Amino acid sequence: MTKLAQLQAALNDKGLDAAYISDPMTINYLTGFFSDPVERVLALVIFANDDPFLFAPALEVEAIKDTGWTYPVYGYLDHENPFAMIADHVQHHAGTLINWGIEGESLTVDRLRSLETALPHARFNTDLSPLIAQMRMIKSPDEIAKLNKAGKWADFAFKIGFEAVQVGKTEQEVAADLEYALKQHGINKMSFDTLVQAGPHAAEPHGATSDNKIQNHQLVLFDLGTIVDGYISDASRTIAVGSLNDKQKDIYKVCLEAQLAAQDAAKPGITAEELDQVARNIITAAGYGEYFIHRLGHGMGSSEHEFPSIMEGNKLELQPGMCFSIEPGIYIPGFAGVRIEDCVHITDTGCKPFTHTTKELLTFPK
Amino acid sequence: MTKLAQLQAALNDKGLDAAYISDPMTINYLTGFFSDPVERVLALVIFANDDPFLFAPALEVEAIKDTGWTYPVYGYLDHENPFAMIADHVQHHAGTLINWGIEGESLTVDRLRSLETALPHARFNTDLSPLIAQMRMIKSPDEIAKLNKAGKWADFAFKIGFEAVQVGKTEQEVAADLEYALKQHGINKMSFDTLVQAGPHAAEPHGATSDNKIQNHQLVLFDLGTIVDGYISDASRTIAVGSLNDKQKDIYKVCLEAQLAAQDAAKPGITAEELDQVARNIITAAGYGEYFIHRLGHGMGSSEHEFPSIMEGNKLELQPGMCFSIEPGIYIPGFAGVRIEDCVHITDTGCKPFTHTTKELLTFPK
Repeated sequence: MTKLAQLQAALNDKGLDAAYISDPMTINYLTGFFSDPVERVLALVIFANDDPFLFAPALEVEAIKDTGWTYPVYGYLDHENPFAMIADHVQHHAGTLINWGIEGESLTVDRLRSLETALPHARFNTDLSPLIAQMRMIKSPDEIAKLNKAGKWADFAFKIGFEAVQVGKTEQEVAADLEYALKQHGINKMSFDTLVQAGPHAAEPHGATSDNKIQNHQLVLFDLGTIVDGYISDASRTIAVGSLNDKQKDIYKVCLEAQLAAQDAAKPGITAEELDQVARNIITAAGYGEYFIHRLGHGMGSSEHEFPSIMEGNKLELQPGMCFSIEPGIYIPGFAGVRIEDCVHITDTGCKPFTHTTKELLTFPK
Repeated sequence: MTKLAQLQAALNDKGLDAAYISDPMTINYLTGFFSDPVERVLALVIFANDDPFLFAPALEVEAIKDTGWTYPVYGYLDHENPFAMIADHVQHHAGTLINWGIEGESLTVDRLRSLETALPHARFNTDLSPLIAQMRMIKSPDEIAKLNKAGKWADFAFKIGFEAVQVGKTEQEVAADLEYALKQHGINKMSFDTLVQAGPHAAEPHGATSDNKIQNHQLVLFDLGTIVDGYISDASRTIAVGSLNDKQKDIYKVCLEAQLAAQDAAKPGITAEELDQVARNIITAAGYGEYFIHRLGHGMGSSEHEFPSIMEGNKLELQPGMCFSIEPGIYIPGFAGVRIEDCVHITDTGCKPFTHTTKELLTFPK
């Protein structure tokens, strides 16, 4: 059963007539076509009892046909009213439909109001976001193969990035070197902005790569990922530049212990919050609990923003096929930051990582 | 009057008690702090009669303080309920408020429903997106200076990119070369994915840069932009590789004529749709009207998705300070694509471009 047929079956189960799918990642997942239409309208309309159609900016129509999409695709021009046109196509395909599902996590309020105007008899009360997230949470062997492939390129990027590290070089220059090497190999999309952060700058865990210069006796944090065949990698490593003091060594050691313990504990049956606790207990016992200020991990697959979320309060039991990051961090403002991260997939008996760069503390330049 | 005070005055004019601002670009515009929180919650709450506050993921709080934000900023951890916490802060600051403005163009349906649950007495009927877009549409001299600076880096990128063109080289390799050169100069953010498209591939105007190899006797289309100090550039050029046939030369000539005519016609008083028509008439008269499948241009500033939209149906009169692209294109499927684009700002008597790379047809390698 295709993913599209699965969703169609779910519509029938829920007594829905149709679904308005608007998240570009979901459209990619269901159709194999990815595009970020930004302020333009891209929609997949799925009927409970009829063939679906895609609706897209006119300038995307050729690319959609090229992907092998066999159902109708309708384009619109910038000066046309997309929602009125969608309503006409719906009427033409299936008549007046009442019960619609939407993706509440991504559909904007304005667009819902435009749909309500264009389809005055329709009710958009059912949020399909949780169901779609659920479908996307368990990865197929084919998806896991793609995630492994993306992971290999992250390992390659670490190798280049570590070797590019020099005292006096900026974080940006190191990031530029590793991205350039990837592009020379045809890997031209990162899954998010590459993070290289040296010394105290790494204590801003979601700060940006900057012109901050790498200095001797610093920890340097890398967080990076690639996109390959629509699937991502995401991994973090922290390396040493020159010799470190005892406190720097200690936060690395504690973070690594937490990461390894969590990766060891990740298997079917443990809950997401229990897994978070495995890492958090180690960091807290070492006295750094207040500096681990985010969840242990996030789901990943086509993006790094999927389920399951590995955090306090999530009582979901892990199951084979779930994919997520295990990324404890210790961020001491004004001092240093450490994060060590692999993304893994749950197997029948444990978990396997998508990235394999050593997690022993490495020192560069060699 | 600061931009924040302007918006506060607008709330009073409209009889609103408060605004829930959730678009990261708007938050950047109003506060100077930019972050893309992705699935986490970042909000700016503005009261009609009290100081505003920011609400952000805990791991962003330090970065916000570093920007010099002098009002309160509240953080939340991943396992906490952000909307309940926002409701508490609102209650604490200003008591029970009824009439709220939202940004309907970016707020999702789920988040609106969460706000409605957390603030049961509030009504979120007023969409502030048009007002904010209006505020952002007229740029200050300071903003125009930043746009000029970003434009200079786009010109630099064209120079590197053109020189990188070789027969047999892939589109990706050329894009990698120009982005690497920018990063070496500390320009580490493109405003969108750099587009390099050769031959028939350029007839997919929003397709991606690929491993398609550049061949002799092709047109190669570049579309690129940088982000500098929170403001972008966005420009397109099309160059020749080797000699061209008459049809390739003709579509270049017609596209250039359309671009120059529109840039000449852009001045206070002409409407957006009239300006679109200036370019479109030239392309249509030359017999290529059906291949110009998008609007003439889009507003730009902090992003390339601002107002005014230069298209049929937009009767807005252009005014000094408005910034937008002038980018006619001719895309003949299976044959070639041409686009020539400068972004400009309207002055008292005409317009000035932010990019200055020649638009004469250049041939590379030289």
